[in-house]
Amino acid sequence: MLDYPPFTMQSLLKDTFELAEKLLQLEQNSEPIPRQSPEELAEKLVLSLPSDGVAQAEVFSRLEAILQATPKTSSTRFLNQLFGGRQNYAAAADMITSLLNVSMYTYKAAGAQVLVEQQLVQHMAGFAGFSNAEGIICPGGSLANFIGMMMGRDRANPNFKEHGSDGRTHTFYVSAQSHYSVDKAAAMLGIGRQNVRKIKCDYYGRISVDDLAVAIENDIADGCMPCAVIATCGTTVLGAFDPLREMAEVCRKHNIWLHADGAFGGAALLHKQQRVLLDGIEHTDSITWDAHKVMGVPLTCSMLLCKHQGKLSKSVQQDAEYLFQADNEELNPGLRSIQCGRRNDALKLWAAWQAVGDNGWHQRLDKLFSLAKFAADYIEQSPDFELCQRPDYLTVCFNAKDADPVQLCDLLHASGEAIIGHANVRGEKVIRLVLVNPDLDTSDLLLLFENIVATRARFISA
Amino acid sequence: MLDYPPFTMQSLLKDTFELAEKLLQLEQNSEPIPRQSPEELAEKLVLSLPSDGVAQAEVFSRLEAILQATPKTSSTRFLNQLFGGRQNYAAAADMITSLLNVSMYTYKAAGAQVLVEQQLVQHMAGFAGFSNAEGIICPGGSLANFIGMMMGRDRANPNFKEHGSDGRTHTFYVSAQSHYSVDKAAAMLGIGRQNVRKIKCDYYGRISVDDLAVAIENDIADGCMPCAVIATCGTTVLGAFDPLREMAEVCRKHNIWLHADGAFGGAALLHKQQRVLLDGIEHTDSITWDAHKVMGVPLTCSMLLCKHQGKLSKSVQQDAEYLFQADNEELNPGLRSIQCGRRNDALKLWAAWQAVGDNGWHQRLDKLFSLAKFAADYIEQSPDFELCQRPDYLTVCFNAKDADPVQLCDLLHASGEAIIGHANVRGEKVIRLVLVNPDLDTSDLLLLFENIVATRARFISA
Repeated sequence: MLDYPPFTMQSLLKDTFELAEKLLQLEQNSEPIPRQSPEELAEKLVLSLPSDGVAQAEVFSRLEAILQATPKTSSTRFLNQLFGGRQNYAAAADMITSLLNVSMYTYKAAGAQVLVEQQLVQHMAGFAGFSNAEGIICPGGSLANFIGMMMGRDRANPNFKEHGSDGRTHTFYVSAQSHYSVDKAAAMLGIGRQNVRKIKCDYYGRISVDDLAVAIENDIADGCMPCAVIATCGTTVLGAFDPLREMAEVCRKHNIWLHADGAFGGAALLHKQQRVLLDGIEHTDSITWDAHKVMGVPLTCSMLLCKHQGKLSKSVQQDAEYLFQADNEELNPGLRSIQCGRRNDALKLWAAWQAVGDNGWHQRLDKLFSLAKFAADYIEQSPDFELCQRPDYLTVCFNAKDADPVQLCDLLHASGEAIIGHANVRGEKVIRLVLVNPDLDTSDLLLLFENIVATRARFISA
Repeated sequence: MLDYPPFTMQSLLKDTFELAEKLLQLEQNSEPIPRQSPEELAEKLVLSLPSDGVAQAEVFSRLEAILQATPKTSSTRFLNQLFGGRQNYAAAADMITSLLNVSMYTYKAAGAQVLVEQQLVQHMAGFAGFSNAEGIICPGGSLANFIGMMMGRDRANPNFKEHGSDGRTHTFYVSAQSHYSVDKAAAMLGIGRQNVRKIKCDYYGRISVDDLAVAIENDIADGCMPCAVIATCGTTVLGAFDPLREMAEVCRKHNIWLHADGAFGGAALLHKQQRVLLDGIEHTDSITWDAHKVMGVPLTCSMLLCKHQGKLSKSVQQDAEYLFQADNEELNPGLRSIQCGRRNDALKLWAAWQAVGDNGWHQRLDKLFSLAKFAADYIEQSPDFELCQRPDYLTVCFNAKDADPVQLCDLLHASGEAIIGHANVRGEKVIRLVLVNPDLDTSDLLLLFENIVATRARFISA
């Protein structure tokens, strides 16, 4: 049995950095996608937790084995998710964050880190046209959407927090192509999934504002209490953007909270021309914007912005005398978070922003938009492929002719050639290519298309 | 303006590790508590986000300035919070986690990391006497409690998720000394803060089970729907443990979910003798257990355990066809989390466990219990101090005679001598000393007591 403490952080740092370097080498030189089944892994790896601790070298050797069996999300073959690649400064600062280990509830406990988060809130709010915003970084877009919807619920029915529902039907409105977190949040918030009105979309995946208006009016006539409209800015599959300006008009008419789920699409605000995709964003009440998706910051880093000072605190706040002891409320972000203890997810985004600046983000987005255009052009012109539609944003949905997309994705995964997923578009299965990693190049895309064609040949001949 | 990408991770790693080493030096050699006001800091630091990125050396220099202005939570003078110190292996693995950057929703995206989390779930569940548990690591104890309470709500009223409240009053039960997250969760869950019954405590801060039983019976007679009883295992101020075995009996009688909030106290399960504080834990339905508190793992790492296979998934699940594409459900932890994208908070705890083993955790706890005993003994015997009560766990509440505890804590903070907080016990303000950092020694405690006496002298003479 090891005595406590058997080691110092200094001695571990050296090993940690060697392990980090090995990981970077692994990413470049070996298969980025582990090809073992869970059963094979469980047999091969030493996973169980021991009664007595093992020596430093052995811990690091077990760690290394696990790294090898972990998909390399920074690989240019990882195209499966709305995140991928690595913003290096953000990763570096996130490593330091693990050592700093502050909890982001009070200035007393987190010091300058609170100011760092405030800078991000105000700067990002500026991109959205909010002049005096409140905001908080959340552990993921689902929970940021949850808070946006809760603020809507609490404005529609200020008694809800104290007394729960009065038995009236409370409703949310969202497009049929919205993220599943909206249904999830409705269930968690005590509204009920059945009371999320799924408004139909046009061919391109954008909400029909006419249908939205009718649904709201019908519900009001039926005695329901509309709580919020959730606009999807960048749908998960097609990357479609709901028309914010028109939705805001409908919401204004009925005095309903408008939350913009820009978990995926919020980053388009950073592109000088394409920010038009979010035209009217300044008329929303709250926004979700994930920096861990298109901006490449390590998971998780979801900004929740609220246009109205005080609304966020009011909806989230719960006093705790032993905790919030000093300083003014602005310096105690714990009053605005659904967590008590909270990881510092601000420093990594702040560091990345220092290194790239507003203009660097524009360049990053520009590269990604041009990759999406290249992929769409290629697919459109190729006899092997069919494009679902020209992409507005950074997902390209397509099919290889005469091939089942599910089977294709599974085979590409099994062979280690690519991690890429499938999705449903207008009732049909398609391959969804996600372009969020600016380290990708056109040659990577050409290789992917080649691999798809070769894989198809394998099972056509089989 | 910098081109993208202007740097490689390799080149940043070197600077990152130098910065990490500087931070460790800072912790040892300089003031662990920054003594600037937020206004001074805002003036001194370069915090704003630039239009054009700055060079690597400048980014790191700005980062270093921010580190200096961040409280050193690993310092032996940081006694303010239920976390403190550093479990070095966990910190090391957490640094690597930032580079790995997997999202913990599917085996396809996270590979071996999913197995790592499963090991922790089953092993920790074993300490709680659960034989076939479901579990998930949550971003903080507040959200773990939220899930525990939601499972109770959804078992009491299986329609809630789909349809929201039917207008009946749904209730939760918790001690008057419970954590504020229970009220917060009740508000978020659509139950209402007013429907959290705060049951009175005995002198030592433990819930009165008789009063609990009466409250439940009265509510049932009134047509309310009890959703869950939340037992506090280690209250925030006194470190009191509610009597689980007796509470479980009350819950069994009325078929009510029993959630144990062991965010702070769960770790006592790791101590061979003191685990008796949680006697009866095997009769609860779900448990919150924060590894980022007493176990020293970087924030956040909250284990939520559920005794009943399937209940957690059922309460949290929301299908998303584009996401959950392969593998069996057990290997897709996204079906059990309230987040979609989810940071890997498992690897750090796993690495720490490899290094210390079950027996190392026992030793850690043993050291902490002995520190608490030393502090209590000293206070009891000193003419300068008054002890509130003998501690059951790792917080020691006391006062310096003839001194206002709030003023004392503020002065200690301002002078950089200690970050330590005050709290309310039985209507009186007291100083709360938290002993969760095993790097503390009796000499650190003696120095703290000396500093308190000297500080008191300063304002008695003033």
